[in-house]
Amino acid sequence: MKIKVGIVGAAGYTGAELVRLLLDHPYFDITCITSDASVGRSLVDMYPAFEGQTDLRFSEHTDPALDACDIVFLAVPHKAAMQHAPKLLEKGISVIDLSADFRLKDATVYQTYYDHEHTAQELLTTRFFGLPELFPDDMEKARKAYAQKQAVLIACAGCYPTASSLAAFPARELACVDAPIIVDAISGVTGAGKKATERTHYCSVDENLEAYSVVSHRHTPEIEQILGKPGQIIFSPHLAPLKRGLLSTVYITLKSDITLEEVRTHYQNFYANSPFVQVLSEGLPKTASVVGTNNAHVGLAYDQRTQTLIAVGAIDNLCKGASGQAIQCANIMCDLPQQSGLPHVSMSV
Amino acid sequence: MKIKVGIVGAAGYTGAELVRLLLDHPYFDITCITSDASVGRSLVDMYPAFEGQTDLRFSEHTDPALDACDIVFLAVPHKAAMQHAPKLLEKGISVIDLSADFRLKDATVYQTYYDHEHTAQELLTTRFFGLPELFPDDMEKARKAYAQKQAVLIACAGCYPTASSLAAFPARELACVDAPIIVDAISGVTGAGKKATERTHYCSVDENLEAYSVVSHRHTPEIEQILGKPGQIIFSPHLAPLKRGLLSTVYITLKSDITLEEVRTHYQNFYANSPFVQVLSEGLPKTASVVGTNNAHVGLAYDQRTQTLIAVGAIDNLCKGASGQAIQCANIMCDLPQQSGLPHVSMSV
Amino acid sequence: MKIKVGIVGAAGYTGAELVRLLLDHPYFDITCITSDASVGRSLVDMYPAFEGQTDLRFSEHTDPALDACDIVFLAVPHKAAMQHAPKLLEKGISVIDLSADFRLKDATVYQTYYDHEHTAQELLTTRFFGLPELFPDDMEKARKAYAQKQAVLIACAGCYPTASSLAAFPARELACVDAPIIVDAISGVTGAGKKATERTHYCSVDENLEAYSVVSHRHTPEIEQILGKPGQIIFSPHLAPLKRGLLSTVYITLKSDITLEEVRTHYQNFYANSPFVQVLSEGLPKTASVVGTNNAHVGLAYDQRTQTLIAVGAIDNLCKGASGQAIQCANIMCDLPQQSGLPHVSMSV
Amino acid sequence: MKIKVGIVGAAGYTGAELVRLLLDHPYFDITCITSDASVGRSLVDMYPAFEGQTDLRFSEHTDPALDACDIVFLAVPHKAAMQHAPKLLEKGISVIDLSADFRLKDATVYQTYYDHEHTAQELLTTRFFGLPELFPDDMEKARKAYAQKQAVLIACAGCYPTASSLAAFPARELACVDAPIIVDAISGVTGAGKKATERTHYCSVDENLEAYSVVSHRHTPEIEQILGKPGQIIFSPHLAPLKRGLLSTVYITLKSDITLEEVRTHYQNFYANSPFVQVLSEGLPKTASVVGTNNAHVGLAYDQRTQTLIAVGAIDNLCKGASGQAIQCANIMCDLPQQSGLPHVSMSV
Repeated sequence: MKIKVGIVGAAGYTGAELVRLLLDHPYFDITCITSDASVGRSLVDMYPAFEGQTDLRFSEHTDPALDACDIVFLAVPHKAAMQHAPKLLEKGISVIDLSADFRLKDATVYQTYYDHEHTAQELLTTRFFGLPELFPDDMEKARKAYAQKQAVLIACAGCYPTASSLAAFPARELACVDAPIIVDAISGVTGAGKKATERTHYCSVDENLEAYSVVSHRHTPEIEQILGKPGQIIFSPHLAPLKRGLLSTVYITLKSDITLEEVRTHYQNFYANSPFVQVLSEGLPKTASVVGTNNAHVGLAYDQRTQTLIAVGAIDNLCKGASGQAIQCANIMCDLPQQSGLPHVSMSV
Repeated sequence: MKIKVGIVGAAGYTGAELVRLLLDHPYFDITCITSDASVGRSLVDMYPAFEGQTDLRFSEHTDPALDACDIVFLAVPHKAAMQHAPKLLEKGISVIDLSADFRLKDATVYQTYYDHEHTAQELLTTRFFGLPELFPDDMEKARKAYAQKQAVLIACAGCYPTASSLAAFPARELACVDAPIIVDAISGVTGAGKKATERTHYCSVDENLEAYSVVSHRHTPEIEQILGKPGQIIFSPHLAPLKRGLLSTVYITLKSDITLEEVRTHYQNFYANSPFVQVLSEGLPKTASVVGTNNAHVGLAYDQRTQTLIAVGAIDNLCKGASGQAIQCANIMCDLPQQSGLPHVSMSV
Repeated sequence: MKIKVGIVGAAGYTGAELVRLLLDHPYFDITCITSDASVGRSLVDMYPAFEGQTDLRFSEHTDPALDACDIVFLAVPHKAAMQHAPKLLEKGISVIDLSADFRLKDATVYQTYYDHEHTAQELLTTRFFGLPELFPDDMEKARKAYAQKQAVLIACAGCYPTASSLAAFPARELACVDAPIIVDAISGVTGAGKKATERTHYCSVDENLEAYSVVSHRHTPEIEQILGKPGQIIFSPHLAPLKRGLLSTVYITLKSDITLEEVRTHYQNFYANSPFVQVLSEGLPKTASVVGTNNAHVGLAYDQRTQTLIAVGAIDNLCKGASGQAIQCANIMCDLPQQSGLPHVSMSV
Repeated sequence: MKIKVGIVGAAGYTGAELVRLLLDHPYFDITCITSDASVGRSLVDMYPAFEGQTDLRFSEHTDPALDACDIVFLAVPHKAAMQHAPKLLEKGISVIDLSADFRLKDATVYQTYYDHEHTAQELLTTRFFGLPELFPDDMEKARKAYAQKQAVLIACAGCYPTASSLAAFPARELACVDAPIIVDAISGVTGAGKKATERTHYCSVDENLEAYSVVSHRHTPEIEQILGKPGQIIFSPHLAPLKRGLLSTVYITLKSDITLEEVRTHYQNFYANSPFVQVLSEGLPKTASVVGTNNAHVGLAYDQRTQTLIAVGAIDNLCKGASGQAIQCANIMCDLPQQSGLPHVSMSV
């Protein structure tokens, strides 16, 4: 019998991506999708890509069908997630949260960046962090707790932090200068969400490049937490005209003399057991190569003159950067093969 | 044991799409991919989307591994296909041809439109036509022949003919005026193939719309053959700035008084047993809803003033319009579920 | 001294395009731009393309500065235009209306298609129609009236009607079959306006093709009026992923035997004195070749088998299809060279 | 009488852009365009955007009409420019070179990065550097020399160096830490030139982001030379799916305590007399705001935690980054208003 899963906030892009991936999942079965703004509307009506593939309709966030789920994915915005998670956990339902609400361990930092009081701080110490390649211990603990019938909360990493950290993290074990790390990243427009705004209007994005939220982006403290560099990440996100895809170029100053090939070997060893991360043996990654999949491609360059490592990570922001990673976490938690139901071959063109 | 398949001409876009789909196929196993221009090169090197997913390398078209295949997909251009097909068939290997070489029954028409003598005309009478929803008898015959260990040749329909005919064909059973049918279609750039030309340069395509090969396009006689309207199809293809997706808007003059809903019901009945064709119950199709899948969406509108039916078909030109359809044909020929290995849920965004 | 012009509804795309073109106009001077929704906001703040080029700020639609204008461009939506026009005309101010409110001569047709009562019907008999190449008499009358200090109202043609009619109109003088004309057109997204909606969201448009409002689009009766074919235009607009550009492919059945070259010569003679219309001596037009300019490119193909002329027109929907044409009309009305202030060389890439 | 100008290598993108700008130039007259690969072909045939606007045809590079020019623009690739320049100068013709051949003062550095011997090194000491806002002395000297009938050689700055240096240069006068400067930039595809390659194929670029030539890009030493930071620029270019537009994000570590507003005021003062540079009073620049113009928008952000200034420059790579800047230099050299013939208002959408 399949594991019953529900999706709270399924009308948004990450919600729709969860449905896409879960419809073909061999072990999970979607029993319920909710959207307070679209109650009663069919998923097909909102997303014609599902035509003929499912009869799912949105119900309310209070839909009792959620109570019968084994796992609930929260695809609601931050603030909303911290309302839903405690209630579901109390009912014994495990929660995979795609929002930012439970990522930061320090509620003060959360409150500074999200300008909102954290009302479920007690969960910050018990939640697990969902970026399996970098936090395998969290995944192992989640697996054990779930096996013991505990209600588990996993806070999945954000899109920029996922790509940036997969590129930067292994360098921590090389001799790095204790200096700020620059993270310069570019995202497709799905990262801005489904809301129609002046900013997401086709004519604002098409044929345009821009930097935004430089220095102040909310993913800054999350990257700092993952890399253990508080106050030392300079993060500049950019918006480019494409739907899916996120490329992060990270600049790390190394201390010792090292060759690019030594760095690459270190990275390849680091990710040897991570089926979703491919460290390129030459060249730099293209986001198109991972779109639609849960893969992350990592490429490396080295400026010997300044001893600067340039590590570039490419992901699909909606898949490995959100819904795919959430399912990967759920797979691991349920002791399933982590690749279950997750696409691994992108369209070549 | 899996059925062994080879791909001749695997370096092009339809070849790469075949690999994408076949890597996860439950019953087929790729044993050999060939490309005379890229012998020895790894598929990953050419298409980094396959990084970590396969070790396939291109071999020569004369690779003896082909001889051990049960089925060979021909993804070479026209003219080349008519060289390869007879040789493979003689060896008892069934051939699924994605090129135009065996689509037209009349070699004279072929020679007029393709400006080249047909050197394997004998196969034009024995080949089956690969557009399963419209030519189920051909598929049934192919299935029987293959079951009897015969070497079968299937000539898969082209991209424009597939979308246009799926939209227009069911109307043949309504009372149509004996008048020309206008087919006005728009394609993404993958339809122009992998060759880098002035025309496929990003800066030629981006932010541009154009009509091309109006009146003279080679898919004209193929649509005429499928719809049984020799000399009566006015076909205008257009190029638009997107990679995948083909939308065909077909104008058919009806004779009798009929309502849009009656037409729609007729279409829905016509495709009731075709899992890949969705006749929309309202509205008109979007190509984005089928990209990456083997689905075809068909939408309908009716101008009562002029009794003109406007039928619109949307497909992914590389999938249902080429490689997906080829695999669908192979599935049927092998008596497998026709949906085996074929994606059916597109990315919503 | 320059002619004083105001723009009512300057916050939208056609308003901003008017400003772009008028800032460098040798004879017109913008004295006032209005937007009830953005009163006080600087134009630069809304459209950073104007950074450093102008200090214009939006004022209210009731701004008394409008009363001091010689000419007012109405860039408000339909319904609003019929409120503003009579008041301005009463004050002796000439009005160039970019909306649909005064295009259709028959108020009943307007009411059917726009679902709204026409409250200024008396102006429908006195307004001039702004599509100078096809309605030179209207322009001549407007010029004379303006010279006699009369307040003139010009209703500029819509974007689809402009491209489609420039392509189809000259064929009226060839022997045409009395049959419906099919107009199959594709537009960039600026045609949908500045409002942020689900439909104009980048992720809805990008990598997608769709037909919309087939049979029911409001430009249908306008094309019928221009071409003198009431109830005989089958019009199918499509949306494609680009900002600017509109391509219209028109199918006209000819009666007599005629060659493509004869048709082309007829077209070239027809537009011999129209500096903005280029009839291509071979091939079919590309929208990118006219973007940013007031040019229209027209290309021709002919299907001898069915005696069908395929005429293709390409314009920039915001320029020749809206603001450029409006200025062209104002130029003629003011007895200025019609090309004054209007770009005529597009970016090649 | 107008100044006679010729364009050598006019078939490429920067050549076509020169023609676009020069056709409407009030003081320059194009007398000759050359392209050895397209001798005899009309410009319109290659770039239909010029339809009806010019009868120019490509002649050979040895066209004697060049000898009658006052100024020749070299729009040929590097290596070719160093062949043409000396010959033209010897004939007393001033040369505006858009290639990289005369940018670097140090021939050794040139040879390292361009892998080619420099055969006209004597000109490296006498050429002027064409980036007028940052090298006004060079422009003043060029003006004087030209006034004295000397044949002047101006080496125009590259696209990445222009955007990056306009963003970074004024910070030199602030207290900067003596540390490497990171330049992370994104370009549209016109930057890769007109040649049809696998890399410039629409399907390679569309829906893709990638970094390329990180650490090794040839513009690295040029930026180092302009900013006076030899061996201290870490430069990572990226390619994004758009035609025109280049955004450069530069990271500079400041020494002293300073506020963002102080930095901004310094920048605004620095560019007070530069009509083409707009320092934004808030926010960060968008490339779409400068496309088609010779403008550069510069925006600023400051990370107080790490004392890092993030300066972002946006230009149109073909205009301010190439052909527009070349004309700006020619204008100044000829003692004309520097804005002559150069567009300054971009399309808002």
